[in-house]
Amino acid sequence: MQQQKKQITAITPTREDDYPQWYLQVIKSADMAENSDVRGCMVIKPWGYSIWENIHFVLDDMFKETGHKNAYFPLFIPKSFFEKEAEHVDGFAKECAVVTHSKLEQDGKGGLKPASPLTEELIVRPTSETIIGASFAKWVQSYRDLPVLINQWANVVRWEMRTRLFLRTAEFLWQEGHTAHETELEAIEETEKMLEVYGEFAEQFLAVPVIKGRKTASERFPGAVDTYCIEAMMQDKKALQAGTSHFLGQKFAKASNIVYQSREGSLEYAWTTSWGVSTRLIGALIMAHSDDNGLVLPPRIAPAHIAIIPIYKNDEDKEKIMEYIQELQSALKSLRYFDRKIRIEIDARDISGGERSWNWIKKGVPIRLEIGKKELENRTFFMGRRDLEPKDKKSISFDDFVGSIYDILDSIQENIFQKALKFRDENIISIDENSEFYRFFTPKNSEKPEIHGGFVKAHWCGDPACEEKIKEELKVTIRCIPLNNIKEEGVCICCGKKSLERVIFAKSY
Amino acid sequence: MQQQKKQITAITPTREDDYPQWYLQVIKSADMAENSDVRGCMVIKPWGYSIWENIHFVLDDMFKETGHKNAYFPLFIPKSFFEKEAEHVDGFAKECAVVTHSKLEQDGKGGLKPASPLTEELIVRPTSETIIGASFAKWVQSYRDLPVLINQWANVVRWEMRTRLFLRTAEFLWQEGHTAHETELEAIEETEKMLEVYGEFAEQFLAVPVIKGRKTASERFPGAVDTYCIEAMMQDKKALQAGTSHFLGQKFAKASNIVYQSREGSLEYAWTTSWGVSTRLIGALIMAHSDDNGLVLPPRIAPAHIAIIPIYKNDEDKEKIMEYIQELQSALKSLRYFDRKIRIEIDARDISGGERSWNWIKKGVPIRLEIGKKELENRTFFMGRRDLEPKDKKSISFDDFVGSIYDILDSIQENIFQKALKFRDENIISIDENSEFYRFFTPKNSEKPEIHGGFVKAHWCGDPACEEKIKEELKVTIRCIPLNNIKEEGVCICCGKKSLERVIFAKSY
Repeated sequence: MQQQKKQITAITPTREDDYPQWYLQVIKSADMAENSDVRGCMVIKPWGYSIWENIHFVLDDMFKETGHKNAYFPLFIPKSFFEKEAEHVDGFAKECAVVTHSKLEQDGKGGLKPASPLTEELIVRPTSETIIGASFAKWVQSYRDLPVLINQWANVVRWEMRTRLFLRTAEFLWQEGHTAHETELEAIEETEKMLEVYGEFAEQFLAVPVIKGRKTASERFPGAVDTYCIEAMMQDKKALQAGTSHFLGQKFAKASNIVYQSREGSLEYAWTTSWGVSTRLIGALIMAHSDDNGLVLPPRIAPAHIAIIPIYKNDEDKEKIMEYIQELQSALKSLRYFDRKIRIEIDARDISGGERSWNWIKKGVPIRLEIGKKELENRTFFMGRRDLEPKDKKSISFDDFVGSIYDILDSIQENIFQKALKFRDENIISIDENSEFYRFFTPKNSEKPEIHGGFVKAHWCGDPACEEKIKEELKVTIRCIPLNNIKEEGVCICCGKKSLERVIFAKSY
Repeated sequence: MQQQKKQITAITPTREDDYPQWYLQVIKSADMAENSDVRGCMVIKPWGYSIWENIHFVLDDMFKETGHKNAYFPLFIPKSFFEKEAEHVDGFAKECAVVTHSKLEQDGKGGLKPASPLTEELIVRPTSETIIGASFAKWVQSYRDLPVLINQWANVVRWEMRTRLFLRTAEFLWQEGHTAHETELEAIEETEKMLEVYGEFAEQFLAVPVIKGRKTASERFPGAVDTYCIEAMMQDKKALQAGTSHFLGQKFAKASNIVYQSREGSLEYAWTTSWGVSTRLIGALIMAHSDDNGLVLPPRIAPAHIAIIPIYKNDEDKEKIMEYIQELQSALKSLRYFDRKIRIEIDARDISGGERSWNWIKKGVPIRLEIGKKELENRTFFMGRRDLEPKDKKSISFDDFVGSIYDILDSIQENIFQKALKFRDENIISIDENSEFYRFFTPKNSEKPEIHGGFVKAHWCGDPACEEKIKEELKVTIRCIPLNNIKEEGVCICCGKKSLERVIFAKSY
């Protein structure tokens, strides 16, 4: 790479030059989001928000098909609710927004000061187990009331110190599923089922390959008995946790007093789960696929499928080309791609065709159609695809385009997924030797410290001390214990004690 | 009414017996929402939330068709932003949630106390003009950047002292449109256009007839130059403001410094608008249509269109009836009614058919189909409609039902609207005499204090003192100055001075 003449790219810096800055520039160039004047809170602009709407649209359907219903619970959690589950409060109390007053009044210096202190402080929800648990306790009396299968689309607040657009923000949007069951087994099945849903969504829609696994105790959701996760690899070879599903045992049922009369007549605590994905998925989407020309969007989640760029020299040409475009719109009008209309952006701005074309490249639109007088006369389009090089454009007839639109979109979707899969698989290795493990996670002189490493499958004895030692020395953590693990004897990469399976080690977001 | 023998109704008390309690019982019987443990905040249960999802679905499309895009802005507003517009802060400072700390820590007595005080307090948004204005100020440089047409779906918090499910809650869900324009005229046109959208939505989807008008100065949104509204009549003859659209002039642009370079090169403040509807619409829907048997839902907004009640005596019958139901599901599967799938609830619970049927009456489902052995053998359904009496059921053949499903749904929708329209129009009168006006708004001995009055069209001179006097003495306010008013000379109902048009007076929610 270093030998080649450097290409001019739409995004500066490139991934190789400065990965974290590249990430921010992709977001800026696609006009997806920006920092707000409120510390750590972002403004999600229309192009970014539309991706979230599509995520919502697809996942919501998947949740409903698996029997869940949406509801809405209060934004505020009374402090006393929060205190009921000890591990839970330990995990969230350090970084939460506390509401203490219900009024502002004149401070006598021309400004305002808080007034009317609350008798009990309220926490802006960082997650809703405790407040939803209070409702479940009222809803559930008997085993006949179970399972309760609820999902909520909401905003949550965690006072993160170091924030980054989409990946880590003080306020973020998410969905949180909360369910209560009669038996332990049913709750575990629910936890696993929703992880499957997340995995399918990530791979089939976001085109992001994921490893499904279980977290070690130290990485669990505060208060969970078991946390399942999907882990994706970004282009800097770091891991990003893209969704989690928690088996909560009876711990939260005890904290919220979710009790039911069993089939045998005894009073039992319910078994609960919770699971969520957030606007962080948009960060994963950006970092998994985008290139040095900007955002790359899989068609099944893109805000627009097609950008049309009419190119004309006079009003007469313009009128005819716009008619031709209308004809295309009519032909596509009734089509649905994965239950969404085929969405088209027509860019007739009074700037050069090249500039407009690059605008849509940076925004990641899967298909670009340039239409000039020649295309009009031949009834063709000059088509560019975001999964190919910007200059790799070809002519396609009107009828062929309309007739093969699903194939084209599927082919782009598949190419994007395969590229990400190839990259990930090339960067997963098995290591059995401690010194090799340490060398692997230490950037060489030829490497940028921001882009190195990968996922390492290595043996771990199960001792949290080994996990902690590696974390301290290398900033590498166990991302998960894969669900489909092959049992295989070996020795712990850290201490050399006996181990029965490999786990995934990586640096992470 | 008082002469007739009292019917047994599904809701106790009836509207006539105790209107406010009837309202709460309709919500409870339909399982729509409940109070939470957080003062003034409600839990919106799946049946209620699904109505909100449908409102979102329809309105979102209407907003997009009128050129608006969705975005998302921070939940928190820095206190200093809030202070920028004097009238605005006066309107909202009295009742707002103030975040003062970013952490909880051990208080040494086994509990937690707020820690890490913020350098500047944050307000949980009661509305977002000031925080969105800060973004617009960055986005807008030149007249070429205008108009900016943005909508946000969000939760907001206003610390109301007296709350009531859906109608007035401390936290509620809403959408807030925010736009910025080059000229005053464009901004006024936008304000009026969105009022039209609200009016169309209320009448065509919620089946709630509304009067479109402008508010008097005293009833305006804090900081607005002009507030437009839609006003609906509930069954207790009170008015409910169902949506507002505000022309903000340049006041908020000045507060947020939204400045653009004009076509002539000068720097100008933009002209802005904002407009919103909230979960309050669900309260309007309930109070406009429901009867003493519970909720009545217009098909175009109902969570389910059809409830199916299979009635069988043994497993063999059950199996055949369930097959017959599947056949109906297949026949309706690809149909869309106002862009939504025809949604069906199958209630095969092991309780009596009558009990199940009443359950769906109370939930307001437009069509009920009872299916027993007789229906199976004759390929018919025993159909009940929520706009007719519960016992007024009739047999309809499978083919007729499928073939006329749109007509049946439209007919229910229209009946519900016409009934509400008739009720409202019967309860609007013109009054020209002060003593008659006072008599009209004072409950007679024969009337329940909760249900009396109506809308009065009366002359008003325009003096806020007259408005205030009537408000104090009768608790009656000017709901709006209708947009389609006929200019007509008269004398003020309060002071007798000259007036040029009538306004709408009523008690209100």
